Amino acid sequence: MPGNSFGRNFRITSFGESHGPVIGVVVDGIPAGLTLDLNKIQAHLDRRRPGQSRMTTARSEEDRVQCLSGMFEGRCTGAPLALVIPNRDAKPEDYEHLREQIRPSHADFTVMARYGFRDHRGGGRSSARETAARVMAGAVAATLLECIGVHCYAWVHSVGPHALTVPLPSGRPSRGTTSGYEHHRLCPFTLEQIEASPLRCPDPYASSLMEAYIDEVRSAGDSTGGTVVGWCQGLPTGLGEPVYDRLEADLAKSILSINAVKAFELGSGFAMSEGRASDFNDAIIAADTKEWSSVETMTNHSGGIQGGISNGQPLWFKAGFKATATVTFPQQSVDFHSKPVTLQAHGRHDPCVVPRAVPVVEAMMAVVIADHVLGWPAAQISVLLKSIARP
Amino acid sequence: MPGNSFGRNFRITSFGESHGPVIGVVVDGIPAGLTLDLNKIQAHLDRRRPGQSRMTTARSEEDRVQCLSGMFEGRCTGAPLALVIPNRDAKPEDYEHLREQIRPSHADFTVMARYGFRDHRGGGRSSARETAARVMAGAVAATLLECIGVHCYAWVHSVGPHALTVPLPSGRPSRGTTSGYEHHRLCPFTLEQIEASPLRCPDPYASSLMEAYIDEVRSAGDSTGGTVVGWCQGLPTGLGEPVYDRLEADLAKSILSINAVKAFELGSGFAMSEGRASDFNDAIIAADTKEWSSVETMTNHSGGIQGGISNGQPLWFKAGFKATATVTFPQQSVDFHSKPVTLQAHGRHDPCVVPRAVPVVEAMMAVVIADHVLGWPAAQISVLLKSIARP
Amino acid sequence: MPGNSFGRNFRITSFGESHGPVIGVVVDGIPAGLTLDLNKIQAHLDRRRPGQSRMTTARSEEDRVQCLSGMFEGRCTGAPLALVIPNRDAKPEDYEHLREQIRPSHADFTVMARYGFRDHRGGGRSSARETAARVMAGAVAATLLECIGVHCYAWVHSVGPHALTVPLPSGRPSRGTTSGYEHHRLCPFTLEQIEASPLRCPDPYASSLMEAYIDEVRSAGDSTGGTVVGWCQGLPTGLGEPVYDRLEADLAKSILSINAVKAFELGSGFAMSEGRASDFNDAIIAADTKEWSSVETMTNHSGGIQGGISNGQPLWFKAGFKATATVTFPQQSVDFHSKPVTLQAHGRHDPCVVPRAVPVVEAMMAVVIADHVLGWPAAQISVLLKSIARP
Amino acid sequence: MPGNSFGRNFRITSFGESHGPVIGVVVDGIPAGLTLDLNKIQAHLDRRRPGQSRMTTARSEEDRVQCLSGMFEGRCTGAPLALVIPNRDAKPEDYEHLREQIRPSHADFTVMARYGFRDHRGGGRSSARETAARVMAGAVAATLLECIGVHCYAWVHSVGPHALTVPLPSGRPSRGTTSGYEHHRLCPFTLEQIEASPLRCPDPYASSLMEAYIDEVRSAGDSTGGTVVGWCQGLPTGLGEPVYDRLEADLAKSILSINAVKAFELGSGFAMSEGRASDFNDAIIAADTKEWSSVETMTNHSGGIQGGISNGQPLWFKAGFKATATVTFPQQSVDFHSKPVTLQAHGRHDPCVVPRAVPVVEAMMAVVIADHVLGWPAAQISVLLKSIARP
Repeated sequence: MPGNSFGRNFRITSFGESHGPVIGVVVDGIPAGLTLDLNKIQAHLDRRRPGQSRMTTARSEEDRVQCLSGMFEGRCTGAPLALVIPNRDAKPEDYEHLREQIRPSHADFTVMARYGFRDHRGGGRSSARETAARVMAGAVAATLLECIGVHCYAWVHSVGPHALTVPLPSGRPSRGTTSGYEHHRLCPFTLEQIEASPLRCPDPYASSLMEAYIDEVRSAGDSTGGTVVGWCQGLPTGLGEPVYDRLEADLAKSILSINAVKAFELGSGFAMSEGRASDFNDAIIAADTKEWSSVETMTNHSGGIQGGISNGQPLWFKAGFKATATVTFPQQSVDFHSKPVTLQAHGRHDPCVVPRAVPVVEAMMAVVIADHVLGWPAAQISVLLKSIARP
Repeated sequence: MPGNSFGRNFRITSFGESHGPVIGVVVDGIPAGLTLDLNKIQAHLDRRRPGQSRMTTARSEEDRVQCLSGMFEGRCTGAPLALVIPNRDAKPEDYEHLREQIRPSHADFTVMARYGFRDHRGGGRSSARETAARVMAGAVAATLLECIGVHCYAWVHSVGPHALTVPLPSGRPSRGTTSGYEHHRLCPFTLEQIEASPLRCPDPYASSLMEAYIDEVRSAGDSTGGTVVGWCQGLPTGLGEPVYDRLEADLAKSILSINAVKAFELGSGFAMSEGRASDFNDAIIAADTKEWSSVETMTNHSGGIQGGISNGQPLWFKAGFKATATVTFPQQSVDFHSKPVTLQAHGRHDPCVVPRAVPVVEAMMAVVIADHVLGWPAAQISVLLKSIARP
Repeated sequence: MPGNSFGRNFRITSFGESHGPVIGVVVDGIPAGLTLDLNKIQAHLDRRRPGQSRMTTARSEEDRVQCLSGMFEGRCTGAPLALVIPNRDAKPEDYEHLREQIRPSHADFTVMARYGFRDHRGGGRSSARETAARVMAGAVAATLLECIGVHCYAWVHSVGPHALTVPLPSGRPSRGTTSGYEHHRLCPFTLEQIEASPLRCPDPYASSLMEAYIDEVRSAGDSTGGTVVGWCQGLPTGLGEPVYDRLEADLAKSILSINAVKAFELGSGFAMSEGRASDFNDAIIAADTKEWSSVETMTNHSGGIQGGISNGQPLWFKAGFKATATVTFPQQSVDFHSKPVTLQAHGRHDPCVVPRAVPVVEAMMAVVIADHVLGWPAAQISVLLKSIARP
Repeated sequence: MPGNSFGRNFRITSFGESHGPVIGVVVDGIPAGLTLDLNKIQAHLDRRRPGQSRMTTARSEEDRVQCLSGMFEGRCTGAPLALVIPNRDAKPEDYEHLREQIRPSHADFTVMARYGFRDHRGGGRSSARETAARVMAGAVAATLLECIGVHCYAWVHSVGPHALTVPLPSGRPSRGTTSGYEHHRLCPFTLEQIEASPLRCPDPYASSLMEAYIDEVRSAGDSTGGTVVGWCQGLPTGLGEPVYDRLEADLAKSILSINAVKAFELGSGFAMSEGRASDFNDAIIAADTKEWSSVETMTNHSGGIQGGISNGQPLWFKAGFKATATVTFPQQSVDFHSKPVTLQAHGRHDPCVVPRAVPVVEAMMAVVIADHVLGWPAAQISVLLKSIARP
């Protein structure tokens, strides 16, 4: 199978290059009858757009979503939904000087090795602009999930050395070495709190430190990495598969498929590899309802998944982004004629893409969960889908 | 697609429960003509077996591999290869007391929620014994990869707080905050060095610290987590896909699909999210051969992959394992009648599964890479496969 | 994707050669809780076995099905079900003379061209014995379908020039040029009527003509082809997909994947290409219930499918089998050294495999329909699956 | 997997409705470097267009193909290729009266049952206009195949009762009961001969009979079926799989997925089920080259495939199309309120779609063969692909 599709039941196929006519996505498998609002999809896209604050680059793209198929009278028909955004700001000539360059820690070299030739303009398929396709598909997935009470959030957890402090709910003792997310039954932040920060970091103090740090990095012609936390609230119990297609395995793939992501951890993640079962086992407590299917856990180090299957607690994970490779200080490299060169980019650059990656993380999370929801045991799915309007 | 298969071109389908007649795997897509040695597969299986040292549990399993199909006169025919190991030590009655229990941080509850009922004997499909299927398939993949000069290694990097120290090759300055693997062009350890340690940790001093730590954890009735490094030497340049099926994305999925794995990082991973491009960009240097397709990088923070595609440097990553949930100290839980109970396991337990997980990590790495090799551009693959014997 | 799996939701993976240790199949995607009776699977296998009457070859195979995984206390667990039958009658030395031969209209030559070498014993994977894997999987599918009131039948429609005459229900005028199946709302034959004939032809007179014809063909060292009709009763309305994965497209693939099948037609099939809409359009009539979802058609030339989706009428189709290529009269050929040879097989041969193919056609039909049922809109599936026992 | 994609290696995903903004297709898996000419794709589309002669309907569509992604400087980049044609002649109001109708032998009723509601305008996804997506993808596949010397043809073999007569090459005796195609080593017709007929029937006499017949059928407000022969010349030996993904099985699926197709036969097809091995076995003869891999067969009843794998002879098959269901004489039906109605369509109708289906059959044949070529053993594929330009 070629590599531009993702998902088994909610299946997305992405197409389009950074400097071609459009970026697009075909979403197949949407249940017929789902009411879809293009304005909502547009709102998700707008959050991904650069140029929203001085924290990000200023390329002005309008990115107006168009629906080419799959809707009729405001609802999805069960046919494939094709969404595109035209590329308006494409100036291929700006990239002519890149034709022969091999930029360090870029895909220039590997794409050439893989395909024998390449579209050098703005990275072609390797451009972060491809993530617009993911955001469109993710907005559809999120719409589907909202019908069954599932909500996906993401926010910036750290930029360089600066991380937010998660407020602990009162009455819950902090054990172990992780950041505190494991004590929350509800998402600790609202979308408003997240979006109030130009960095999408809902801790105002940490946000201001990050902002100052990014300014410093920018003026050095450098860039910085960071981490994003993804959080899913309302996930039903019993979602996932026990062997290869574990919910966390599919999540890890989806997150590692995002440009610049180099690391993924579910729940307390790597911290758990440094500790003991007595630190990290999540004790089970009876739910108020007294039904076994509603038992809860005292802590949530597991990140909402046991043995590949959701356990009814919030799903949370962290994605690690490296610093963007595009910087303006001089770098040592070689061109496609094997001649050593010193590369120095000019103009504006994006010193930290992590805030713009937040809606992309949200989108891939929503796509993976929608994919598992649609592959779920039918007896359970029907209960959940009953709220989807049907004539 | 149901969730018991993995891979697109080198496709494995696993079957069998911990306490059923066999654990088995069907491998489809093996190129016809590949010479396969069942003794080699057995050797891989033996490394996964428990009871090899006092560091692991003592269940005595012979795990003799049998080939049910796909070979003729010592070679693979291109037909599906079915490999099984009989389960000899299965005593279902030992597990009767688990029928009603929900063990903390186990899959008992989630499997019940997913399927409506479950095979409670030894975890059924959620048992770590399923990984024997992966090791068998991985041994086939490794055989295929060896034909084209690709070798997969793995070792224990840390147990609890104790980590090995990677020796830096002389002449390479250490920059950044990571462990030193990024400076190696060749695997820093041999298989012999790895296997010489009962913990599969090739640093004797760290190994002895780990050993003492595990003894302490065991006597507390507790267990500990750890990390495993995977390393692939000889990977050709240009392997992988630029968007969803990135090499690192498929690796992340394969590793997160292993029991008890909670985290994955490629190359310098999370450390890169704390640093700057100037710390972590891998400068490009001309190779001796002067062909662009052989350029190398000064450092290897990227872990051998750029933009989803291999760059000819060693591939390396780290997997984080949580402590096994099975412990002998008392734990709070609830049974399937929602009655609060205190669970206390008896008998021997495995205080650290990480050494036994080493061949499983190796296996999944080999399966993912073989899968990408077989999906590679034909013009390149034929060069590599020429060493596979054909009549 | 390698070619030994079939189905998207009810997914079967077949393995094993004619003369290896076993023939086996892994079935993934079975809903947990399905009660499965191995004796029923055995009964299906017994119908496929040769040597049941003088009409077929006499190789004595016991073909005892064994379950290796996926069941617990009589029910499917949702884990992959692995079924195998040991090969007992394998005498590889009987086939040594075939090592260098290219038999006309066999796969000897093409398998060699495809794989570079081959398992010449009894055809390897190309042997009709592989169909035992299909019959096992089909029996599981049939069990699943019976839970929702869907029943699959097949019978021999013709052998060489002799065809059965389908009795027309009274009161229905015969229009058009086809055989009469298009006028039936219920399957015109019972399983007992079908099995009463040594040829699985439920018309005793046609059956006796076929029997005499096969005797004549056998004594000439020749073989004969024939056709099998497949019929599915109780199929719910709305099953299938409108574009590529049409129900009839998947059926056609499944049937053409059976050894010796060369042709497929749905409903009135090729006859419809010779006629007019006025001959073959199926007029729509109101059902007794007065609900639009239960409307019926006056005739059933369409074979129960409109636009790729079931319409609630019986599904019926015809499969055309060529004569088996193995005959005892002398044939002109060439060996693998390009030397012209005259081939003459000795011993017993099977002059007509069509009766033994009946359970294989049934099986593939059941697999395709189960696959579509499990991919069905959840809201509908839950209604149907409610009869599957759950604890 | 949702049902709007086809193929495993050369994978097409179709989208768009008859009356939405576009019909489109995404083709993934095209080898990088393939030179692609949009004018050639346009030429294929033009052949599918209605209104070319008085034999077909007169809806005027321009159907100008646009490439949205995947090409750079005239060549495919290895990225997904997205092709669309805008729908210019869409008048949804023309279809308002169809909202409540259930037309006999249409998909109105089954689509409603499948999805719960439907886009009634012009059939939505069930419209034959979807086949434009196939023709675009097929033109890409044909371009790929031409690089390795493989050419796909199709023509009208019969319309209603009138069939063409295939000229037998001299010196080859006619045996058996089929039409004569089995004696040809080269395609009996050229594209020019085919296109010279308004019916795409290369036998002028038969073509004139068909033309008169269609006139008669049209004036009766009726429509007629017909058959199309597909022929593939230059197919290398050894293409296909021996079990489920046989070349003929994938072909059958692809052909049965075309609107109005009800039957498929490979080579001599159903005629072989009426005859004996002595009539239909294809005797093997030594090729001039004296290499076993180039042996040929005296006849080609098998249609170029043995055991699922190509044998180096021409591949040929026949597709049976039913008469289009849209007619202008009155028909009995029921509406979605279960009220019996008499339907009578007005305006022009298409009395025979078979000539327009010829490029669709060609396209699906090319897609299936390209899919198998790209999944072929690498050692063989590289020999074939060497003619694809690479820098």
